[in-house]
Amino acid sequence: MLMAELSRSSGVPVATIKYYLREGLLPPGTSTSATRAEYGEAHLRRLRLIRALLDIGEVPVAAIGKILAVVDDESASAHVMLGAVQYQLGPHPARPAEADPDWQAASREADALIAGLGWTVAASAPARTLLVATLAALRRTRAAPPGPGLRAYAEAMTALAAAEVASLPPADGPPEAPGNSRVALAESAVVGMVLHERILIALHRLAQEDASSRHFA
Amino acid sequence: MLMAELSRSSGVPVATIKYYLREGLLPPGTSTSATRAEYGEAHLRRLRLIRALLDIGEVPVAAIGKILAVVDDESASAHVMLGAVQYQLGPHPARPAEADPDWQAASREADALIAGLGWTVAASAPARTLLVATLAALRRTRAAPPGPGLRAYAEAMTALAAAEVASLPPADGPPEAPGNSRVALAESAVVGMVLHERILIALHRLAQEDASSRHFA
Repeated sequence: MLMAELSRSSGVPVATIKYYLREGLLPPGTSTSATRAEYGEAHLRRLRLIRALLDIGEVPVAAIGKILAVVDDESASAHVMLGAVQYQLGPHPARPAEADPDWQAASREADALIAGLGWTVAASAPARTLLVATLAALRRTRAAPPGPGLRAYAEAMTALAAAEVASLPPADGPPEAPGNSRVALAESAVVGMVLHERILIALHRLAQEDASSRHFA
Repeated sequence: MLMAELSRSSGVPVATIKYYLREGLLPPGTSTSATRAEYGEAHLRRLRLIRALLDIGEVPVAAIGKILAVVDDESASAHVMLGAVQYQLGPHPARPAEADPDWQAASREADALIAGLGWTVAASAPARTLLVATLAALRRTRAAPPGPGLRAYAEAMTALAAAEVASLPPADGPPEAPGNSRVALAESAVVGMVLHERILIALHRLAQEDASSRHFA
């Protein structure tokens, strides 16, 4: 299809598609003349992935480039690809500049929890930093640790995340082929990670409202 | 104590305390002369609550005024007070301007879930709007519904929220009295709601990383 049809089919304006081409987010089409190029289904799928990352994941354009490089790198496993997606999602709390006793204690607490659960997670995982930053903030406010205990949260999340990952599409198709499953997997992962997290937050707050009504009524 | 000591004890600069006094977030001290006023423990606790709402909850100053009005209103139950805190926490997704079939279907889905769980939540709860907005976005992207099913998320949240609310301090003390438990409850609620939610997000992402490593390895 030509650029105009790619724009119609994807709902992305021509000027925006040209911007993605210049930034290298979208691979060039096949030139059919000096001013014309043909685009295919792979371009449509790629546009959908870019829009999911931008609109749903609120991932900056520069970070989208990093994710797409891993999506296109066939030697990267599906696990590495999902990590590339997740690690670009915010927030990215800053580590303290100097030795902070609350941070150090929180870091040991996080490590003990992860080891106790037998979780396989990278020491550099941004979510680990988010956990440590939050546990350090709890220590600084001298607030009580969460009522049900950290381990209860973690165990609930283990069960939910296992079901989420099991419902992802398989990743064994060739990249950019018509039945492309690497792009489909990356797209499902963005939508899933971001929207499921928002569902979790909404249901947590509603459950708090219900629990408060029972507890204080 | 005088203003200078209130500033030292709370860590809040004098200019900021004066701003809170002007905005009515902090009640005036007891005048001891034309230019001097005495502040007490209640002012210290109130400052701590304002900082928790601002720094941890990222609640705008105007919204803090609304929360404090409910904290000070002895006729408002603890449940109403917790609702005032929670309802001012973002995000506040906009409802669609016109009839949107995805939104309407998502709204029915949320109502069926809430009714099925027997949850007592207000139809106007912002978290219900967040849930509906997210379910509508899932429908628009034609993404598969969450792997474990909405109900599994909700049941996990029910157990965690009940334990969180049960660990809140009691709310039967008189307001602004030395052992003030309304302010202590409001403070615990802000810290708890915001930080526990962040812990939940971090652990959900770490659990996804672990599940992905098991699933794709």
